[in-house]
Amino acid sequence: MELVTIDDVKAAADRVREWVVRTPLLPAAWADPERPLWIKPENLQPVGAFKIRGAFNTLARLDDPVRARGVVAYSSGNHAQAVAYAARAYGVPAHIVMPEDTPTVKVEKTRSYGAEVVLCPIGKREEYADALVEKTGAVLVPPFDHPHVIAGQGTTGLEIAHDLPDVEVVLIPISGGGLASGIGTAIRAMCPNARIYGVEPELAADTTEGLAAGHRVNWSVEDRNRTIADGLRSQPSELTFAHLQKVIDGMITVTEDEMREAIRVLAHKSHLVAEPSGATTVAAYLKGAAVPGRTVAVVSGGNINPQMLAEILTA
Amino acid sequence: MELVTIDDVKAAADRVREWVVRTPLLPAAWADPERPLWIKPENLQPVGAFKIRGAFNTLARLDDPVRARGVVAYSSGNHAQAVAYAARAYGVPAHIVMPEDTPTVKVEKTRSYGAEVVLCPIGKREEYADALVEKTGAVLVPPFDHPHVIAGQGTTGLEIAHDLPDVEVVLIPISGGGLASGIGTAIRAMCPNARIYGVEPELAADTTEGLAAGHRVNWSVEDRNRTIADGLRSQPSELTFAHLQKVIDGMITVTEDEMREAIRVLAHKSHLVAEPSGATTVAAYLKGAAVPGRTVAVVSGGNINPQMLAEILTA
Repeated sequence: MELVTIDDVKAAADRVREWVVRTPLLPAAWADPERPLWIKPENLQPVGAFKIRGAFNTLARLDDPVRARGVVAYSSGNHAQAVAYAARAYGVPAHIVMPEDTPTVKVEKTRSYGAEVVLCPIGKREEYADALVEKTGAVLVPPFDHPHVIAGQGTTGLEIAHDLPDVEVVLIPISGGGLASGIGTAIRAMCPNARIYGVEPELAADTTEGLAAGHRVNWSVEDRNRTIADGLRSQPSELTFAHLQKVIDGMITVTEDEMREAIRVLAHKSHLVAEPSGATTVAAYLKGAAVPGRTVAVVSGGNINPQMLAEILTA
Repeated sequence: MELVTIDDVKAAADRVREWVVRTPLLPAAWADPERPLWIKPENLQPVGAFKIRGAFNTLARLDDPVRARGVVAYSSGNHAQAVAYAARAYGVPAHIVMPEDTPTVKVEKTRSYGAEVVLCPIGKREEYADALVEKTGAVLVPPFDHPHVIAGQGTTGLEIAHDLPDVEVVLIPISGGGLASGIGTAIRAMCPNARIYGVEPELAADTTEGLAAGHRVNWSVEDRNRTIADGLRSQPSELTFAHLQKVIDGMITVTEDEMREAIRVLAHKSHLVAEPSGATTVAAYLKGAAVPGRTVAVVSGGNINPQMLAEILTA
């Protein structure tokens, strides 16, 4: 299987530079001086998540006449908004397939970027997306299972390597594995001495189990849906799992309460609003599970339901 | 009176670069497309506020033997932490004078940066600070009334001008006026067509009144203390007022409720935690009071009391 290379990631960086925010590394003044911490705040991207990196790289790689036919994505989360946002920037149509039970606020937000939202029965997302591709000639942008998406997400890692060349520990949330595959590829090449850790909720730890077993394992959707980290309920594809096997040094799992505490710490001490998925890496740092060293925690997104945020900050 | 120049600000930028976060301009995807908005998130600085820019520039300007004797500041807010943080970075002592009624959490935070905190009776801050200077030979770092402080804060404006050269409107909170003096100086020089607006709470609008009158006016401490924007309760000095008269095109005042709403918008849509003072500029944008155009809102700080944040987000 052909894996994404550092050259792919570097080429992606040139393509997405015009569109994505060059997020800084934020030194956490509250961190243990023995284990200095920097936050990579991808929750500050325009749609509130790293996902626009992969979306823009994928759109940029399309030939003009192909891209003009538009794009299709199926997602109820950050990927939907990212593809809608990128399509609007390119002035091409976006068709986003979302399950009927998607909260209205997410549908509206996706529409606010000019996308056409197609609601579908639960479990029929891929079928509907395929039909849309067939009908419109638009191109499907998968959430993680594609080299262009992985290379785009990897640009996050290039920035980390540039800003902190002597980073020793990098903590990355893992769901479908696109972000960790991309960042891992960049860090392996640029900072060969850094250790790369994936972070998962205990309640959706399929990758932790899979990497230990040496092959992908399947957790039921019901099991994975237990975590409040709604961005971490997917599982790696064959392609991302192959990357993870190559670049991940270890896995750390965190509890639901540890994520909630990390959300509080990020809000009160780093002045950032993180969604549970995005806060997992800070939760991993706080429990001291990682080996010591100069640490970067990738906070992948900030799209938390306002009511959940209020509840967590009131607790 | 000699005012700070763009060359002073540029020189300050070289001095503080190593220590301050190069904050990005964050495009607000939720903004009115007719009035595009970028946030300058100074709440992401290590102590949660722009104040470290002025503190670092002031410390950098001291001769080594002078700096080695340490620094003194009187403040119960962001300036205290900024001076403590900068002194620690330089490895010199910091003595911070705080009123006895300062919330313990702020005292502890200042101590956490290695500063010696001296508590004093209310209203005796300057007297205590002067005595400390006398006794220790340390240098007083004023919160805004000094050219080196103004030049340091102005580096924020240089970054705005670099990142968005065709900015049309810049919104800056005004309290003692150091930040607006510095940013105004930079923007006037680099983006001569941009309009620069100061923002104040209605309940502490002494500068709005003073600029209209053509001279400083005094509001009582009791009046100014009514606003929840605890970072905006100071008044300009002769030096900062002279800068403001030169660089400010207009003033906008906001209500307490408008600040609360801006805090909610920043948390939910831009994933940033702002203190009331920092949110005033977004409040000004939201009420549409400014003239239209490509707008930058400087979010000056994020040190909001956790209980107040929870209350505002629950409302």
